Amino acid sequence: MADDLILHEDPRSGNCYKIKLTAALLGLPLETRQYDILKGETRTPEFTSTINAHGRIPVLQVGERMLPESNAACWYLAEGSTLVPGDSFERAQMLRWMFFEQYSHEPNIATLRFWCRFVGQANLSEQQRSQMLPKRMAGQEALETMNRHLDTRDWFAGGAASLADIALFAYTHVADEGGFELAAYPAVERWLARLPTLPGFIPMA
Amino acid sequence: MADDLILHEDPRSGNCYKIKLTAALLGLPLETRQYDILKGETRTPEFTSTINAHGRIPVLQVGERMLPESNAACWYLAEGSTLVPGDSFERAQMLRWMFFEQYSHEPNIATLRFWCRFVGQANLSEQQRSQMLPKRMAGQEALETMNRHLDTRDWFAGGAASLADIALFAYTHVADEGGFELAAYPAVERWLARLPTLPGFIPMA
Repeated sequence: MADDLILHEDPRSGNCYKIKLTAALLGLPLETRQYDILKGETRTPEFTSTINAHGRIPVLQVGERMLPESNAACWYLAEGSTLVPGDSFERAQMLRWMFFEQYSHEPNIATLRFWCRFVGQANLSEQQRSQMLPKRMAGQEALETMNRHLDTRDWFAGGAASLADIALFAYTHVADEGGFELAAYPAVERWLARLPTLPGFIPMA
Repeated sequence: MADDLILHEDPRSGNCYKIKLTAALLGLPLETRQYDILKGETRTPEFTSTINAHGRIPVLQVGERMLPESNAACWYLAEGSTLVPGDSFERAQMLRWMFFEQYSHEPNIATLRFWCRFVGQANLSEQQRSQMLPKRMAGQEALETMNRHLDTRDWFAGGAASLADIALFAYTHVADEGGFELAAYPAVERWLARLPTLPGFIPMA
């Protein structure tokens, strides 16, 4: 990888952590630039005109080029490595769990963590408050789906640790901060204990 | 591709259409099995025990193996074809827009279409009704982001039609059914007219 890699991030974000963990497991050097999403630092005209028009982190900068979306950035770093299954069906299964993570897991489990831990329940709007129960139920359904899959497997795809595990680890291992009780998902708990044994593993900031 | 391909689908779903469009553009034979999501046919014990434990369509069946998640199924069919950019950075950009589609586009634009056209506004719960305005605004933000990107490009990634275009076309071209006015996004409208000119294109059912 010839180009310098810079991660535009907020260290509290699990989406940013995914990219740092991928780089660490692969031994890739990664610079970082910090932004405070609670202060709107990714919505400034400067940020949207030079980093990401969609006003969101993480963004992986590759030389002068910008790559938003956490799971796409992980893919860019890891393609061709042992973190991506060599078999084409298992590679697609890895992507399946990464899309599951963005559609069925992150909007529920990460959002409730953000609201509970960083925004504070007292500061939520009425509209946000009305979403807490549906997000709680959808998050539990996602954890159940993961638990059933992991009941007979150590890793999500390809028989080894892959980007699917990294993507799902990021917010699952801090799901208790959003009020989820992981003791109800024993296969998930065993899998959570497996990730930190990988050579090069780094914890979330 | 030696294994028979069967798509478990509801023909009203844009997520299912993505897979059929990908197969059609690649000239791949694809059988289909229909389920009515409004009647809960993907939540039966038979479906969750044999097709997808997560109770959702589409699922691409490859021989005896099951692959949920629309964009992962498209990837499986198209990997190595002209629908996936050959350059590694552009391949990651394609995935970037596919993750954008599942996180920032589908939950807003497809959900409002589903509620308005298939469920009916009179049948929405109070909780769903409270989400209509935030989903409207987030959907408009997604369309604006697409419009800005397409203002200087014909296709989302790699300088040619790719899975990113297929994924985003599925629900954008019927966004009016959810009350979105596409005339406000002229670059998106021009791009929408480009897709049907691709050899092998098929319309949504």
